[in-house]
Amino acid sequence: MSQPRILTVGSGAIGGIYSWRLSKSSQVTNVCRSNYAIVNENGFSFDSKKFGQDVFKPHNVVRTVSEAADLDKDTPFDYILVTMKALPEIYNVADIIAPAVTPGKTTIVLIQNGLGVEEPIVANFPENPIISIVAYIGTSQVSPGHISMVGNESLVVGTYLRSKVDNTEQKKLFLDLLQKGGVDAVDVDDVERVRWQKLFWNASFSPVCAMTGMNTSEVLNNKEALASVRNVMKDVIMSANAMGYEFDVEEQMHTMVDRTEKTAKDYKPSMQLDFERKQPMEVEVILGTPLREAKAKGLAVPYLEVMHDICSAANAKTLLDKKSQL
Amino acid sequence: MSQPRILTVGSGAIGGIYSWRLSKSSQVTNVCRSNYAIVNENGFSFDSKKFGQDVFKPHNVVRTVSEAADLDKDTPFDYILVTMKALPEIYNVADIIAPAVTPGKTTIVLIQNGLGVEEPIVANFPENPIISIVAYIGTSQVSPGHISMVGNESLVVGTYLRSKVDNTEQKKLFLDLLQKGGVDAVDVDDVERVRWQKLFWNASFSPVCAMTGMNTSEVLNNKEALASVRNVMKDVIMSANAMGYEFDVEEQMHTMVDRTEKTAKDYKPSMQLDFERKQPMEVEVILGTPLREAKAKGLAVPYLEVMHDICSAANAKTLLDKKSQL
Repeated sequence: MSQPRILTVGSGAIGGIYSWRLSKSSQVTNVCRSNYAIVNENGFSFDSKKFGQDVFKPHNVVRTVSEAADLDKDTPFDYILVTMKALPEIYNVADIIAPAVTPGKTTIVLIQNGLGVEEPIVANFPENPIISIVAYIGTSQVSPGHISMVGNESLVVGTYLRSKVDNTEQKKLFLDLLQKGGVDAVDVDDVERVRWQKLFWNASFSPVCAMTGMNTSEVLNNKEALASVRNVMKDVIMSANAMGYEFDVEEQMHTMVDRTEKTAKDYKPSMQLDFERKQPMEVEVILGTPLREAKAKGLAVPYLEVMHDICSAANAKTLLDKKSQL
Repeated sequence: MSQPRILTVGSGAIGGIYSWRLSKSSQVTNVCRSNYAIVNENGFSFDSKKFGQDVFKPHNVVRTVSEAADLDKDTPFDYILVTMKALPEIYNVADIIAPAVTPGKTTIVLIQNGLGVEEPIVANFPENPIISIVAYIGTSQVSPGHISMVGNESLVVGTYLRSKVDNTEQKKLFLDLLQKGGVDAVDVDDVERVRWQKLFWNASFSPVCAMTGMNTSEVLNNKEALASVRNVMKDVIMSANAMGYEFDVEEQMHTMVDRTEKTAKDYKPSMQLDFERKQPMEVEVILGTPLREAKAKGLAVPYLEVMHDICSAANAKTLLDKKSQL
């Protein structure tokens, strides 16, 4: 059997790392934007304790999804791996990947933050299998094409229960491809629960760090900052429970704060880095979706609400300022 | 009768303007810090539509309150006018003015933002009359000693009901001194009510502008920013009502938003300017005191709480960064 064809859309740090690992057993094409010239010429270079130092040249490097679709028109992509920032307030991922999706054939794999990222995919490609992945990894693109990765990584590879199409076979194969690349990938039947749990941290620490300018350790050492982390986190846990999950509020809060103290010293969440770089933050998938889900269930979540609203407005301000510079 | 002796502590825009107006009928000494050299040499210069263009040379310019106290030891100051930023989290105004306060004699006049600014004064100088003033004015020190003032101004000159000392006579005289200087000063018996009402705006628009980076017009045009303004404002109005006032929540919210649309276009509140300049914001007197008052009454004010907590942490971060630069 020939190697699976994979298209990676979003070739930053996450997209680079997993393209590289999948390339051990697959033919990977990368859509690159700002790093196109470098990656097309030299490939990606990596510095990782877990995976080593290496250079990876993709099978193809292209500038757009349409260009990828034109490469070998008769052979559909088996997988499209989406590793773009999740910004439904700015673009629709479904529109971006559409040219390379073969209905009923291509499996769409999302490695994205937040909640609700599968919705536009299922709505636009109801006949395609979907694999929804939550990543736990510390990595960044330190300069175009150069990717640094600290510590370990793991992927929770899941089923999105609101999808109409079974993904059992495709998920099994994809797990196998990941594991051949040395990735720590585990299989779950309901990825939504994992996404909620990751939000307990990401919807509380991230916006508090972004708004106050404090890193995780500074937040932990400041009574008021930690109070807002806990208040927002409590709202998010209660929202998850309103959706039918059964998380113990105090236990989850304790675990999240405790783990941050032990493993995330002086850390700046991606939302904070985005804000400092005057890039849009992933507000809707991290704060907006849980807020809407809670409100739909009639739950009052005032701490989450005000945090969503000011971060959303801060994003709008970033866009206003960019426009005024044009 | 000789002219009253007035000492102004805090010689920025507000301190400069009202020292100038009071100098028409009083002998004014100014404590200057960053603008000492310029003001000592040339006085303050003003550019105001209401009061005209002028230069004002204070009777004395000093660097510290102690220096002022040494000027004419046998004649107490009749009034100490405090126009410093209200930052109880950083300094205690009572300690700063102490060298120039003659017990039982000097009247202490506060032109400061927020709620609770009188508390440390009453605690430290229980025998001295106190006059508490709320200012409505748009003015700034554009360069050291040079003060620009737009539009009109007005002062609400009040009695602080928790004071143990009657201020009737001193307030009447001080109103007269202000009015001789052309100031639009009105007399009220309970200044606390006016302070609360000013907070409806200042505790909602100001932190939302500061955290989002939006000016007032941008906030009014953004659904989420305006939603957080309204949510926080509602909490503050309910807090005022819990303290015994009777404000109509919807009417106040409508008035505040409507007035902002009409009279505060593209305006940046002082809290926002402080944040942008990496100066401490007046968080405690604007957000902290109403939060504590509400909590003491058993009222839940989650929107106000989270806004207080992140602004307080942002202030702490400003101080951390300043320390690390030393």
